[in-house]
Amino acid sequence: MSEQFELDPRLAADSILIGRLPLSVLLLFNDARYPWYVLVPQRAAISEVFQLSDADQQQLWRESAILARHLMQSFHADKINIGALGNLVPQLHVHHVARFSSDPAWPGPVWGHSPAQPYAKQGIGERVGMACDWFGSDLRV
Amino acid sequence: MSEQFELDPRLAADSILIGRLPLSVLLLFNDARYPWYVLVPQRAAISEVFQLSDADQQQLWRESAILARHLMQSFHADKINIGALGNLVPQLHVHHVARFSSDPAWPGPVWGHSPAQPYAKQGIGERVGMACDWFGSDLRV
Repeated sequence: MSEQFELDPRLAADSILIGRLPLSVLLLFNDARYPWYVLVPQRAAISEVFQLSDADQQQLWRESAILARHLMQSFHADKINIGALGNLVPQLHVHHVARFSSDPAWPGPVWGHSPAQPYAKQGIGERVGMACDWFGSDLRV
Repeated sequence: MSEQFELDPRLAADSILIGRLPLSVLLLFNDARYPWYVLVPQRAAISEVFQLSDADQQQLWRESAILARHLMQSFHADKINIGALGNLVPQLHVHHVARFSSDPAWPGPVWGHSPAQPYAKQGIGERVGMACDWFGSDLRV
């Protein structure tokens, strides 16, 4: 019997679930200091990109490119950082962070820099709404 | 007149040039503590994955998947970390690092952790030779 995908509870605890794309769950990482979204392919027992089928890899990177392009444009970011690390949470998840030369971790990585500063409720609504605009009908909320 | 691709001198200074894949230059990052390779798409004036054509994006991620799979298998790594950051060097480059629960930066990211420890000459030869095996005739050295 094949295992079903379930979002890792640590990812769920650190983020706000926005919705489901054709392949990935889209999360807003709960750190108000950075526009920071995470894609989690809805496939069980996968910790590395290369473990996905070729078709799923292509879909993951399509979703990633849409996300990164809109992050850059909507926030006028200086740089987009994309990272698939997973040393603490092995379930495959790909971070997308809009970076600014004025942000707290610049020019270093955001991962491991300092504790997250959770959103106030209205901040969540705005950033979730933006993602809905970016993905349109591809996003099921 | 279209600009020609030239490897950023900071990337060149921090690494050993292994050869050229269909899309990317393959570099060995000069830090002997981690099996750490970098793909740099040979396209001028590109700093984000989404700025590549769709065909180039697919080729980049094909090269990335081959690299990551072999890194995992050859080094029996605990995790592969993939990162496209570029806050310091905007030229698009994608890091691939074999990570171990025993390595100096675990479980944090390698970027920004501590100064690189350059290879002794024989260490370079071994890791370059492995990459030649992984990519075969796709790699022009």
